[in-house]
Amino acid sequence: MSTDSAKEAPPPDMLWWGWGTAERHEPLSESTRALLTRMLGIDQEPELPVLPPTPPPTRLTDDAIAHLAANVGSASVATDPASRIAHCRGKSTTDLLRIRRGDAIDAPDAVVYPDSHEQVLAVLQTCVHQHIAVVPFGGGTSVVGGLAPEAGGFAAVIALDLGRMDQLVAVDELSMTATCGPGIRGPRFEELLAGHGLTLGHFPQSFEHASLGGFAATRSSGRASTGYGRFDQMVLGVRVATPVGTWEAGRSPASAAGPDLRQVILGSEGSFGVITQLTVAVRAAPAARRYEGWQVPDFTAGIELLRMLATLDALPTVARLSDEAETLVGLADATLASEQNGGCHLLLGFEGDQDQVSTRSQLVDRHLDGISNIQRKSGLGEGWLAHRYQAPYLRDALLDIGGFVETVETATWWANVPTLYAAVRTAAVQTLTAMATPPLVLCHVSHVYRTGASLYFTVLCKQAEDPVTQWNRAKRDITDAIVAAGGSITHHHAVGTTHRPWLDAEIGELGVRVLTAIKHELDPTGILNPGVLLEPGG
Amino acid sequence: MSTDSAKEAPPPDMLWWGWGTAERHEPLSESTRALLTRMLGIDQEPELPVLPPTPPPTRLTDDAIAHLAANVGSASVATDPASRIAHCRGKSTTDLLRIRRGDAIDAPDAVVYPDSHEQVLAVLQTCVHQHIAVVPFGGGTSVVGGLAPEAGGFAAVIALDLGRMDQLVAVDELSMTATCGPGIRGPRFEELLAGHGLTLGHFPQSFEHASLGGFAATRSSGRASTGYGRFDQMVLGVRVATPVGTWEAGRSPASAAGPDLRQVILGSEGSFGVITQLTVAVRAAPAARRYEGWQVPDFTAGIELLRMLATLDALPTVARLSDEAETLVGLADATLASEQNGGCHLLLGFEGDQDQVSTRSQLVDRHLDGISNIQRKSGLGEGWLAHRYQAPYLRDALLDIGGFVETVETATWWANVPTLYAAVRTAAVQTLTAMATPPLVLCHVSHVYRTGASLYFTVLCKQAEDPVTQWNRAKRDITDAIVAAGGSITHHHAVGTTHRPWLDAEIGELGVRVLTAIKHELDPTGILNPGVLLEPGG
Repeated sequence: MSTDSAKEAPPPDMLWWGWGTAERHEPLSESTRALLTRMLGIDQEPELPVLPPTPPPTRLTDDAIAHLAANVGSASVATDPASRIAHCRGKSTTDLLRIRRGDAIDAPDAVVYPDSHEQVLAVLQTCVHQHIAVVPFGGGTSVVGGLAPEAGGFAAVIALDLGRMDQLVAVDELSMTATCGPGIRGPRFEELLAGHGLTLGHFPQSFEHASLGGFAATRSSGRASTGYGRFDQMVLGVRVATPVGTWEAGRSPASAAGPDLRQVILGSEGSFGVITQLTVAVRAAPAARRYEGWQVPDFTAGIELLRMLATLDALPTVARLSDEAETLVGLADATLASEQNGGCHLLLGFEGDQDQVSTRSQLVDRHLDGISNIQRKSGLGEGWLAHRYQAPYLRDALLDIGGFVETVETATWWANVPTLYAAVRTAAVQTLTAMATPPLVLCHVSHVYRTGASLYFTVLCKQAEDPVTQWNRAKRDITDAIVAAGGSITHHHAVGTTHRPWLDAEIGELGVRVLTAIKHELDPTGILNPGVLLEPGG
Repeated sequence: MSTDSAKEAPPPDMLWWGWGTAERHEPLSESTRALLTRMLGIDQEPELPVLPPTPPPTRLTDDAIAHLAANVGSASVATDPASRIAHCRGKSTTDLLRIRRGDAIDAPDAVVYPDSHEQVLAVLQTCVHQHIAVVPFGGGTSVVGGLAPEAGGFAAVIALDLGRMDQLVAVDELSMTATCGPGIRGPRFEELLAGHGLTLGHFPQSFEHASLGGFAATRSSGRASTGYGRFDQMVLGVRVATPVGTWEAGRSPASAAGPDLRQVILGSEGSFGVITQLTVAVRAAPAARRYEGWQVPDFTAGIELLRMLATLDALPTVARLSDEAETLVGLADATLASEQNGGCHLLLGFEGDQDQVSTRSQLVDRHLDGISNIQRKSGLGEGWLAHRYQAPYLRDALLDIGGFVETVETATWWANVPTLYAAVRTAAVQTLTAMATPPLVLCHVSHVYRTGASLYFTVLCKQAEDPVTQWNRAKRDITDAIVAAGGSITHHHAVGTTHRPWLDAEIGELGVRVLTAIKHELDPTGILNPGVLLEPGG
């Protein structure tokens, strides 16, 4: 290891202080700023971060570094500040606020870049012997503290960056499966599949930077999940490196040979092992796409409409319904650009071969055409497609001017959607208003199931003096409200350290005990992502 | 408990020596018998069992019986021979052969009939303290030794018959979910749902007698799984009584809050706890049905055709393809009635509303009409629908005349289907021929996935002198062959005691360790179904 060798490591994917790349960062428009000033009192001049903070000195001993270098080669162990800062926490708003304010206390002591399953196994052995905590690091896009373990009892912490394990290992065009390394990013995977005329169909907000291994570890769900399914439905096989050896799951499309252990690995958030390879189901790349927009009178009517389509098995590939507030401020197409007229925007997207797209869109049209108080809204689909990966850049620009924005997501059964929707809005408004930063709370439904739907909230307000505490309080009250109202504590963001206090409310005391027993079996010294998903040392 | 009180227990669902009810038992036709004589040398006169065997004396102490009676009421603890025999093992062919030959060594020492979750929890506490093994008993249809634990180290064994916990607890017609007790049988559940215009859509071979709790515990898959999905895809919520308390899983349609623990309960085969309630997704009862038959030139062509439909997302609700042998002997429509002309029979069934059935069947027809060497085969769909629950009765009649029949099921990726198909056939033929009972090996595909399919084999031969040993040897060689050829050791029958020796081949040593760790956490004294799924005391 040396600063020299670190130069050979892959460059960090994203800005240390924000989302994505600097080229795509742009200030908010004057009209948006005027809106934010008027509605939320956000009125600072843009101020961009300049110099990254300096991380604390590495706690790794020369002996530990030598052992790690023996595992992966000295060129693959980086302790330089830039590498460490690039792997400090994830991309939640509080993560960004803390690093923007110079707080790099959670920076890993080193970044290690394995290039094979065997190297991962070897690194884990070293970390067991040296009592070093390990953070499996894919795209670095966690928004729930999944990359900031509570590693107080450990000698040091390393980020295990899986970016070099980004091969498309195999494509089986008969079985329609693809096998890849965990570090491959969404766009690269789709690009390689496209060479075979295939697609995965997993397009979450984080798509441009997140990795396949990360999708698996967090039970990610993409914006086209209504049609293509959640990532946990796409994974057919997984290989995991654990401190006690190699674990593989998934031998056939379906099995009755005991519990489905794939579903134990999915969502384990790096706390049971490191995913080193995965096999996913793929599809023919869509030859046709049709996105159409509708204006519906209100959120309740829109939800009822989606429920009807779900019940009739007539769902599109993409279904997004923005509530009145989200529609009003123009976030339905991710532009935050203008005030829209009343009602709610509903986006329906159909993808597939020409025949499927026309059959399915005609079916939906037949159902919708009979409804009197809804109307087509042109341009909505195109606008959303063009801007769908833009929201995190809007956040950066908002933070630049002293605004605060964060998202909260949950899911519930259809019958409970109205209750849950009201509960989250009330909690967010009450708590933030009490802190003298009354928020705008926007919401959309973006993942529709036969039995229920997700609710995705965007909370916008002015930053308080201490915005991290501001949000932690609001988040606590909102999550309490979600639990009380019967929602899931997370629909697709994962548990991390952020949601961990509510995990027992979600899965019960015995559920937590089962997960803890699994962790003890696979990671007896607790080195893997301590405090993420489960209590550290729990 | 007393013999009197046992009279109040529900009557056993099925004949002690065979499948189902006596009224539906009928001898094979003369033409079928002639076929069996000619092809397999099966030529005995029918001989039906008369008197049930006497079980060994119960090992339960008066004290233990008093404690159990205190848990559930004395009328709900039965030690009479008939109750015990009715709960002795399941319905595999070797189970039937053993009980027909007077072997009741595995009869439980008592049958206990709880009527609530709280009673199940109480019974488990008693059994922990008295060191009594517990067999959760639903419909009693296991064909993998799931009801015959290896309880050598225990003071006694009870069957915990969940038949009284058979309520439809709630129907949520907005969310399209239904909540029920574990003991409700398939037909009763469908009947109650029909009152709401709903269906579950789960129709396995065992449908007429199996229970919802059993479907969950074994990861059952029905004949309409291609359209309606596997049972593990239908379960949204589960409540389990364990020796350490109540475990519930499933708070929303989907969640990213860690591993999906529903999928740990599903397939746990009573070895982690007793399922006492479940919530499943339901659908509108189909207003329309269309079943159509095709004759395809050979099995390979039929598989290719199903694969094509799967890839095109054009699968029907039911897809069944019989190989040449199964088609030849007429088992494609479960009649075993006549020799058919060449080729293979393919059954495609469409269910849904009128519009769905016509849209989807037309789509399939469009794809099939372009294929030159296939042709419609009338009557096939109707025949199969009429006889689809008949096969186990045919087995009874075959056993009556000295024949042997058992089934083997597996699944694999499309690319591997031909290899797996050949491997199973070869192993079955070689081993049984070496024992001087050359078999007929029939096969069909009945569950089709986008990435692969199940293979369901029926092995027919003459009984050897010791037919249990005969089959155990064949089963061993066949399962070894399945493992070597990359198939799943079971697609929908579960592990039980029968497949347990191959579980590590399916899920790996670490997979077994994970399951064992979960069992230790929930059932520290190992009373639950010892030897089923996992090694006893493992």
